[in-house]
Amino acid sequence: MEILRLLLGSPLATESEQAERIGPAKGIPIFGLDALSSAAYGPEAALTLLIPLGMAGVAYILPITASILVLLTIVYFSYQQTIGAYPQGGGSYTVASENLGVWPGLLAAAALMIDYVLTAAVGISAGVGALVSAAPELQKYTLPLCLLILVILTIVNLRGASEAGAIFLIPTYLFIVCLLGAIVWGVVKAIAAGGHPTPMVDPPKLKAATEAISAWLILRAFSSGCTAMTGVEAVSNGVMAFKNPPDKYARLTLTIIIGILMVMLGGIAYLVRAYHIAATEPGAQGYQSVLSQLIGAIAGKGAFYWVSLGSIFLVLALSANTAFADFPRLSRAIANNGYLPHALKLRGRRLVFEQGVYALALLAGILLVIFGGITDRLIPLYAVGAFLAFTLSQAGMVMHWKKAGGEGAGKNMFLNGLGAFATGVTVVVVLVAKFVEGAWITMLLIPLMIFLMYRVKRHYDRVQKEICLDRPASTEALCAPLVVLPMNRWDAVSERGLRFAWSLSPDIRVLHVESGDDESQDLRQRWASLAEGPAKEAGLPIPELVVVKSPYRYVVGPIVEYVLKLEKELPDRHFAVLIPELVESRWYFYFLHNNRPQALKAMLLFRGNQRVTVINIPWYLEQSHSG
Amino acid sequence: MEILRLLLGSPLATESEQAERIGPAKGIPIFGLDALSSAAYGPEAALTLLIPLGMAGVAYILPITASILVLLTIVYFSYQQTIGAYPQGGGSYTVASENLGVWPGLLAAAALMIDYVLTAAVGISAGVGALVSAAPELQKYTLPLCLLILVILTIVNLRGASEAGAIFLIPTYLFIVCLLGAIVWGVVKAIAAGGHPTPMVDPPKLKAATEAISAWLILRAFSSGCTAMTGVEAVSNGVMAFKNPPDKYARLTLTIIIGILMVMLGGIAYLVRAYHIAATEPGAQGYQSVLSQLIGAIAGKGAFYWVSLGSIFLVLALSANTAFADFPRLSRAIANNGYLPHALKLRGRRLVFEQGVYALALLAGILLVIFGGITDRLIPLYAVGAFLAFTLSQAGMVMHWKKAGGEGAGKNMFLNGLGAFATGVTVVVVLVAKFVEGAWITMLLIPLMIFLMYRVKRHYDRVQKEICLDRPASTEALCAPLVVLPMNRWDAVSERGLRFAWSLSPDIRVLHVESGDDESQDLRQRWASLAEGPAKEAGLPIPELVVVKSPYRYVVGPIVEYVLKLEKELPDRHFAVLIPELVESRWYFYFLHNNRPQALKAMLLFRGNQRVTVINIPWYLEQSHSG
Repeated sequence: MEILRLLLGSPLATESEQAERIGPAKGIPIFGLDALSSAAYGPEAALTLLIPLGMAGVAYILPITASILVLLTIVYFSYQQTIGAYPQGGGSYTVASENLGVWPGLLAAAALMIDYVLTAAVGISAGVGALVSAAPELQKYTLPLCLLILVILTIVNLRGASEAGAIFLIPTYLFIVCLLGAIVWGVVKAIAAGGHPTPMVDPPKLKAATEAISAWLILRAFSSGCTAMTGVEAVSNGVMAFKNPPDKYARLTLTIIIGILMVMLGGIAYLVRAYHIAATEPGAQGYQSVLSQLIGAIAGKGAFYWVSLGSIFLVLALSANTAFADFPRLSRAIANNGYLPHALKLRGRRLVFEQGVYALALLAGILLVIFGGITDRLIPLYAVGAFLAFTLSQAGMVMHWKKAGGEGAGKNMFLNGLGAFATGVTVVVVLVAKFVEGAWITMLLIPLMIFLMYRVKRHYDRVQKEICLDRPASTEALCAPLVVLPMNRWDAVSERGLRFAWSLSPDIRVLHVESGDDESQDLRQRWASLAEGPAKEAGLPIPELVVVKSPYRYVVGPIVEYVLKLEKELPDRHFAVLIPELVESRWYFYFLHNNRPQALKAMLLFRGNQRVTVINIPWYLEQSHSG
Repeated sequence: MEILRLLLGSPLATESEQAERIGPAKGIPIFGLDALSSAAYGPEAALTLLIPLGMAGVAYILPITASILVLLTIVYFSYQQTIGAYPQGGGSYTVASENLGVWPGLLAAAALMIDYVLTAAVGISAGVGALVSAAPELQKYTLPLCLLILVILTIVNLRGASEAGAIFLIPTYLFIVCLLGAIVWGVVKAIAAGGHPTPMVDPPKLKAATEAISAWLILRAFSSGCTAMTGVEAVSNGVMAFKNPPDKYARLTLTIIIGILMVMLGGIAYLVRAYHIAATEPGAQGYQSVLSQLIGAIAGKGAFYWVSLGSIFLVLALSANTAFADFPRLSRAIANNGYLPHALKLRGRRLVFEQGVYALALLAGILLVIFGGITDRLIPLYAVGAFLAFTLSQAGMVMHWKKAGGEGAGKNMFLNGLGAFATGVTVVVVLVAKFVEGAWITMLLIPLMIFLMYRVKRHYDRVQKEICLDRPASTEALCAPLVVLPMNRWDAVSERGLRFAWSLSPDIRVLHVESGDDESQDLRQRWASLAEGPAKEAGLPIPELVVVKSPYRYVVGPIVEYVLKLEKELPDRHFAVLIPELVESRWYFYFLHNNRPQALKAMLLFRGNQRVTVINIPWYLEQSHSG
């Protein structure tokens, strides 16, 4: 418990929940980290696909970025509307299931869960990518570094949202200042040099073109570049984490985040073209990230370069935190509707939905291991889920305005409808363009998860129906249980069991299993004097001694068999099996006793039925005087 | 269960025990493997110490081996006597504790247990050493190979003694035939060549001497060479495994084993000198075992070489089996006296003392990992335990004859006294000569184990005293327990709990924990109609509803606190806590329910006392109609 407290902090009472809510200053790091850090891998993902075009490819980044910025603007207005309509916090899942029905809701849920897991995985792997750009000798430790960061994030998030925000505050603002600073500096230099600035440090030479330009290639580059938009959803999903009035602060936060992101994306696209910077082969020797090349070209590899790359590393790695902030909230919302295990609904000691944090860490860890911690291999799986969720959310908002009606409904429907259309087209484009590279995995996972969620719900409904009871307690046919008391030899523990049996029921069977190794065969001879005599004298029911032979030296099996046989013979009775158990005062003494009581309890639970109850009679060694 | 059956065979009934007993043909592989295989590492261990002497060192192997053969003869006669005096099977432990008292017995027990663990570890590591001599490219997998063999041995031994013997029959006899054949062949060639035979394959060149001869070096070489005698004890320890008359067959088996071993040791010593074969640096590049060099020199590296080396590998690796046959028997004998956990006394499904097999495998595995699977590093730990056990056994026999008296007692006392003296001197020699290299570890472990065994015994005695009861059952002050029934909401499971409570006791407290997340706050309002009303009508005791608030969202904690508070307030009552639990029909549904019932049971057991009993009320989903 002490270690838990040190790692995770003291437990918080439910009343402290209010105090945990945040403003924009903390909201930008918590919900914006993913969106902003996308600037570090989105443009790079597009440029990586343009590598085969050589010098010509770099030029195409401008139209591709322009399309993405248009899309981003549409999505921004759509989500501003969502926050207004769902101030209590409604992400795609809530919006889609409330307005479109159960199945689209589950579709959104599945898409979002996959998206968050990928956010965590891609954030971490891209962060390690930045680290490896600056320190190439670390390249061979890519995967261990990824997993180390995952573990740290998990621990930090188990401490709770507020502290998590505080820890991420400084790197996020440092990142914003550095990257915006570099962009402004670079743009000024480029304009001063008439559009052809001289790099301080030359980027790696461009490779010669090995492919001709094709619409297909541009489409794939655009699809990869769309990952720059992931994370925009986070604010609307977590509105209820903001302080009052939450919708106002959430909107403000979203506006700031999107504004910064657009400046970053546009600036990067302009500058890579001006400085002739292309992507390098990911995972290969000599890999260097686009931002590392760009900042080196603008500012040289001095102090500014190192501080910037440090902040990029931190922000990318920590951007996974967006997923840690939102995945548990999302899975709680789904669990509240009965589609995920109830355990996800329980807040833990630090007001965090702990099970959700564990689930996310596990899934992201699996992804990182499978794909070796290489961002470029994870990207094709990524955008599908995010844009599917965007689409369903926007479509749900259209239905929402339609139902709500009133003034401005037409304009609202148009805005969200435009969003739904634009993002819907993007889903199809991404799916087609990225299918072979990995989008098929997402396509398989989504129906699988929907099926699982459906089964979970059906199971809960069935259990609910089965144990539901609309009438008062019945008092008919109450009857004391038939007590079965296994007894190895006569000692104080056995006596205590027998006394407890007398206090419960008039029907007592004492069961003795005779195996070759037992020294207590005199129990039979002494039974009359040990138990039958005293019972007669006191007018108590006489306990019957049943002896069972065990040729295989098993003790547990014969007891279970006897109980099940009895249960078949007497279908109207209930049975109580009394299991005496020695409880040691020190844990290491447990090795000195066999685990028969545990095995017997487990077997009875596994093979028994409604009418068999297990009663555990503990005998506490060294404090047994009150027995 | 099916996998268990496949790996370990069907269970055997206690009556089959007799049929598992063996004759000399099976006794030689089972109890002689360790003694015979010592021929493969004993001479090598001595020669390794003589490496610094160069050519001159090889000559010293003759006097060293001669001393070992004398010692072996003395020990042989001593053990012949032990088998006669303890036909029911008595190893050093039995003999020492019966004749010398508790503490010398424990000393022998500790020495023997360490010795068996080392037998397993050294056998396996030396086997892998032989393999690596023949296939040098495997050298880097030394430790994984060792652990693989350990796992295989463990599985084989869990199947039971008889089958284990059958599996080892062929390699053992193949080893005997090959090694004796090579020795006879080599001796004939050497004599024919006038004592200077020409090797078929030249052994590696002897290194030049780097040290002068010293008595200290000879002493250390002798101490290492003494490991050739380990395993001689095994037959006398396992007499009861032989068929009737066991003492006759055990003696015959011991005679054959010692005879073969002496021929091997003498032959090897003669031939390494004749062929000028020295040891090579263990664990280093170019390592080749002495027997590999010797057989290559005698027979060339043809089919005979490969078959011989294969049989040496198998026999060395499997010699660990001697330990697997005897360690569980030994630890059972110690456990029978109460000095080791009772679990070691239980025969498992295949009549094997399974816990002993697991303990041996674990300890040998730890040793192999610590010492990297290199035989030469394990050797210094080895001989101390074995010779200490020899000494105690012989000393015990002297006391035995003294007590027994009668004809021949003088002669018998002399024989065993000589054995005790010779082996006792060897213990001191080995301890001094090997102290720094590793004998100190054994010296530390022995008192530690004696202390642990003493504590185990004391604990058992205390428990026995505490629960011992010499009177019939008391019938005074019997009183139904106060029942505590935690209830979250009203449903069929709750009703069943309430009905069970009514059938047990007139005092019922229904405990409702109100945490923020609960939807069942109407339980309080409906309690009168749900439970109190029906109880009044039927004339049953009225269950009292107790509501407890939980600010930290914990449910288990408050229930435990309530029970403990109640227990303090009512020091004369017993308490029964009823815990309803959903039991799923399929295992994977378990993830869908929280583990509160398990946590509650564990907490109550941990923090409760003699007067708190836990009653588990299972509700079996999908078969609940009989409830």
